[in-house]
Amino acid sequence: MNIHSLKTTDKIPEPTLRRLPWYLSNARLMKENGELYISSTQIARELGMDSSQISKDLSYVNVNGKPRVGYEINEFIEILEHILGFTEIHKAFLFGVGSLGGALLADSGLQHFGLEIVAAFDINPQIVGKEINHIPIYHTDEFIQKMKEEKVHIGVLTVPINIAQEITETMINGGIQAIWNFTPFRIRVPESIVVQNTSLYAHLALMFNRLNLNK
Amino acid sequence: MNIHSLKTTDKIPEPTLRRLPWYLSNARLMKENGELYISSTQIARELGMDSSQISKDLSYVNVNGKPRVGYEINEFIEILEHILGFTEIHKAFLFGVGSLGGALLADSGLQHFGLEIVAAFDINPQIVGKEINHIPIYHTDEFIQKMKEEKVHIGVLTVPINIAQEITETMINGGIQAIWNFTPFRIRVPESIVVQNTSLYAHLALMFNRLNLNK
Repeated sequence: MNIHSLKTTDKIPEPTLRRLPWYLSNARLMKENGELYISSTQIARELGMDSSQISKDLSYVNVNGKPRVGYEINEFIEILEHILGFTEIHKAFLFGVGSLGGALLADSGLQHFGLEIVAAFDINPQIVGKEINHIPIYHTDEFIQKMKEEKVHIGVLTVPINIAQEITETMINGGIQAIWNFTPFRIRVPESIVVQNTSLYAHLALMFNRLNLNK
Repeated sequence: MNIHSLKTTDKIPEPTLRRLPWYLSNARLMKENGELYISSTQIARELGMDSSQISKDLSYVNVNGKPRVGYEINEFIEILEHILGFTEIHKAFLFGVGSLGGALLADSGLQHFGLEIVAAFDINPQIVGKEINHIPIYHTDEFIQKMKEEKVHIGVLTVPINIAQEITETMINGGIQAIWNFTPFRIRVPESIVVQNTSLYAHLALMFNRLNLNK
């Protein structure tokens, strides 16, 4: 198998992309348990999902199953990791070393999924010049210079909401192409810029609301 | 205004619940800037959204606007915070003090949004008995006892995927009613249990995929 020949630039629908990590983690578990093959039917049973949904999702991924036995498990894992971008290291800069920003710097787990935060930026003199988890923290003014030194496409946004838009624009002007936005602020960006919103607070709100309904 | 009379148990659609935190953070910013009133039109302009969408979302929230001037900003903020559950403290237990779990314990920001992690559980003898950010870490075996001591409804799941389902069942058997699942594993739960999936890795995958499309 030559994974470089895969057409990974085909547009995979977002709901499918959200489900693929479930299939991947399921396959990793089954591999740990000694399985050599994996099928949509098995994944469906394990995850309590409809197997036709899984087959449809996997049709976007160039993985070839054998009738009756299913997909060869190592190939299945390799292809999914490749499609999901976890096999390549993507360098990132983080903006805003507050409580959440500091926590993300401390989370080495991100690197196993392809994200390496190579530096962080803040303006607080108490933390500029320090390191967290061996990641250096620079003054925000040094960002443009650091962009010249490192090939970074991704910016992680963990600043207070009152400067979220301003820092977004700083990032884009410096050449950042994708923003992982952890703020509950809806940032405005040109169409060419990728934004992934991960507001822990919005997720909390959803959970609290559903929990109250059950009371 | 008596916020206790609000019918917050009405079913608010999930997409609306996902957008309300944007309106809230926008209102907080406008308040900081000295504004006394806020309108759908203003929010729409600030967020680059359609104002009819905003009006529709706000129709699920019992906030009364005045023609021309809009909503009184303090009332607007108070009602949204209440609906989103940020004014009440919800106690939680965290399971799995690895890299991400430890990072979440260190993130004091969650408390400002209504989540207080009161204890964590793990089986690693290196960390059981220690504290992170003043939050005690107990052995998982002590969970049932701790549930009797504290009124906790929420469990934060940050364990490795191979024990995600097992720990989910432990939590539910102990009385946990809502699970904030940070693992990329699709946990199976009874219908009465609330699950909020926040897989940072699935979000990373989405971002990497979109970034590759733009290359």
